[in-house]
Amino acid sequence: MKDKINIAVLGLGTVGTGVVNLLKDNAVELSRRSGHDICITHVGTRRRRDDIDPTIKQSDDLMAIAADDDVDIVIEVIGGKSVAKDVIIHAIKHKKHVVTANKALLAEHGNEIFGLAEEHGVQVRYEAAVAGGIPIIKIIREALAANKVDWVAGIINGTGNFILTEMQQKNRRFGDVLKEAQALGYAEADPTFDVEGIDAAHKLSLLASIAFGIPLQFNKVYCEGITKINLQDVVYAKELGYTIKHLGFAFRREHGFELRVHPTLIPNSTLLANVNGVKNAVMVDAHPLGQSLYYGDGAGAGATASAVMADVMDLIYVINANTPSDVPHLAFVPEELSDTRILSSDEMTCGYYLRLTVKDELGVLADTTRILSENGINIDAIMQRDAHKSGLVPVIILTLPVLESQMNKAIKEIEALGAVTEPVVRIRLESLE
Amino acid sequence: MKDKINIAVLGLGTVGTGVVNLLKDNAVELSRRSGHDICITHVGTRRRRDDIDPTIKQSDDLMAIAADDDVDIVIEVIGGKSVAKDVIIHAIKHKKHVVTANKALLAEHGNEIFGLAEEHGVQVRYEAAVAGGIPIIKIIREALAANKVDWVAGIINGTGNFILTEMQQKNRRFGDVLKEAQALGYAEADPTFDVEGIDAAHKLSLLASIAFGIPLQFNKVYCEGITKINLQDVVYAKELGYTIKHLGFAFRREHGFELRVHPTLIPNSTLLANVNGVKNAVMVDAHPLGQSLYYGDGAGAGATASAVMADVMDLIYVINANTPSDVPHLAFVPEELSDTRILSSDEMTCGYYLRLTVKDELGVLADTTRILSENGINIDAIMQRDAHKSGLVPVIILTLPVLESQMNKAIKEIEALGAVTEPVVRIRLESLE
Repeated sequence: MKDKINIAVLGLGTVGTGVVNLLKDNAVELSRRSGHDICITHVGTRRRRDDIDPTIKQSDDLMAIAADDDVDIVIEVIGGKSVAKDVIIHAIKHKKHVVTANKALLAEHGNEIFGLAEEHGVQVRYEAAVAGGIPIIKIIREALAANKVDWVAGIINGTGNFILTEMQQKNRRFGDVLKEAQALGYAEADPTFDVEGIDAAHKLSLLASIAFGIPLQFNKVYCEGITKINLQDVVYAKELGYTIKHLGFAFRREHGFELRVHPTLIPNSTLLANVNGVKNAVMVDAHPLGQSLYYGDGAGAGATASAVMADVMDLIYVINANTPSDVPHLAFVPEELSDTRILSSDEMTCGYYLRLTVKDELGVLADTTRILSENGINIDAIMQRDAHKSGLVPVIILTLPVLESQMNKAIKEIEALGAVTEPVVRIRLESLE
Repeated sequence: MKDKINIAVLGLGTVGTGVVNLLKDNAVELSRRSGHDICITHVGTRRRRDDIDPTIKQSDDLMAIAADDDVDIVIEVIGGKSVAKDVIIHAIKHKKHVVTANKALLAEHGNEIFGLAEEHGVQVRYEAAVAGGIPIIKIIREALAANKVDWVAGIINGTGNFILTEMQQKNRRFGDVLKEAQALGYAEADPTFDVEGIDAAHKLSLLASIAFGIPLQFNKVYCEGITKINLQDVVYAKELGYTIKHLGFAFRREHGFELRVHPTLIPNSTLLANVNGVKNAVMVDAHPLGQSLYYGDGAGAGATASAVMADVMDLIYVINANTPSDVPHLAFVPEELSDTRILSSDEMTCGYYLRLTVKDELGVLADTTRILSENGINIDAIMQRDAHKSGLVPVIILTLPVLESQMNKAIKEIEALGAVTEPVVRIRLESLE
């Protein structure tokens, strides 16, 4: 049994610095819990840092650190996909366990990386890659391991949730809130990854794999961001008892899995609708557990460092056990990963919020409801507002779940009506029941 | 590496039957995840059950099953404290790992049982003992292992939460809802354990130990139930923006720990206030993670079986590893458990809701606020309602946090005022910030 565990932290940005600080702040607690001294022996950094304990070796040669005989665990918090991938593969080949927060890398190259780790008898841990400090990877991989997961729904991008919360609570417009989020450091100068849903899609592909036992398939996630969300729709949704959240969903269906990330109306009464600001939350529906929900900080130095170091604490037991046997990377033993297919967007089923802009004339509502009915779409609620100055009237319709291909067909027919003057606005709706 | 894991289920009540059903329903999923066949080889039951797979041995000789060479893991779901304790100790002495849902037994005898397990190199797992299907034991023991926990607050008794939710949402009285809860099977014929807070205190003592690294000290938990909660106070609290929940708290303070279970006003805007019906939820405030919350079913066959089997899945790795090294029973290595003391109720600090019944005469409000001020108590809100037909006036006061001994002194002085006609009603208040 090793008494001292040596770790290398590659990257000293927000997260890397958070890890260094955590080890300083909580040294006593870590050793009381683990029974081991956990020491940072190396940090990988481009520029020498004077605020780091001088006994820690600093170097910009990441590959050398990843291969160093003294190092038991390599923490990769560089970000990006090329250098990070090279370093992780180098560490694995040198039989080091790896901890990473790199969701983009794992979502796109995880199958290869995990396969290599299994070949070399080491673990690549990634608790921090999804929902920051919320231990959702451990929860689905281990705590819910006896369940059959039916679906997962998560607010897994704090930037997006901050923007939608501000729009919802303060009637602010998307562009204005985005600027504030950038000023506050919640959003990047180039916010594409967050507001177009790509970051959430990365995370969702990881969640879906460990929930269902399927290989990572990021390229099959249907992905829609929040940039087109109009304040008007946020307000109408609220009047109807719904909140618009940007959610990632993974559903088990009869003929395959649905993986999708998009703005969604959910009932105000659900806990997820009350997860505000930069907070994250993930809801899981599983048999026999039923519904459970996990909530907390999805980003930031402290939350991410908490997740990274939880992985390190776990790896101490793996290092001390004389067997590479441990929880499989994607929660299911590799040879049991299933090739059940991911459904196309046409095959997905969900409810819809539709906003039509129509001329104030007789018959248009009758035509619309007839088209919906002919396409097998059931209406759950309908709301007609006063005419704008232009004489045009907004009509809001909520539908029960319907196959997306049918909805596409119905919308085409509705838009062909002479009284419908603008493209139909559509936002998906989930009751989360 | 063992391919087949043999388990014995002792007790075929709700939970035991839930475990048997889970293994039947999710056999494929369990083997895809664990890579092992998990088989029930024995069940311990007083009466022979014809609905059980005939290849499973049925017996009422629990001690013989617990010592059987074929058995790898013993699941104790008998309940009660005497037979259950004997059987668990017998299993430990025969080097079997044990999984139990028995909160009362562990809260009162856990120090002894865990010590014995460590001596014999086996694990006693107890995920199902607290908050049913919510994996809060794993979360605090493992997922938050790198944190220093500041406090834990939990709705950890579903019966109590069901009753308070009904009172809050439907303005019903305690006694009426209790009767319904009994009819629905949410409350026992003798509801004492639930409504007097004892069940919650059992669970809280387990949470406090793994959060802070202290031995189990059930007898030092301050415990107050919900039987004295008056509908009138639920209504006033609501008007002031608060919900009354029955909560278990464990706080780290400068001079010791506070462990307490009692009805509490919490702000409506908190997620905990929106946890309704029989649901459970636990909030943890930790450094550096911050606040996180875990929500789900706190009882029932499915949720409890999910937790029991998660422990079994974990133990498969322990069985396959050639070392007894694993997460310590109380999350901290035994020699590092701290003797920091548990504060007495006089030393506890919290906010208060006070309801005074006073004669409608000049000066009584001034006298009351003077007494509070003289005792160093800051008022956060004050609300005076219309006089009852009797001419008596209810006065509601919310205070900022104050030492309980000071509040006791102030209340005595207030009750001595001539215009105060009834004992002051007091309910604790926590902002959860």
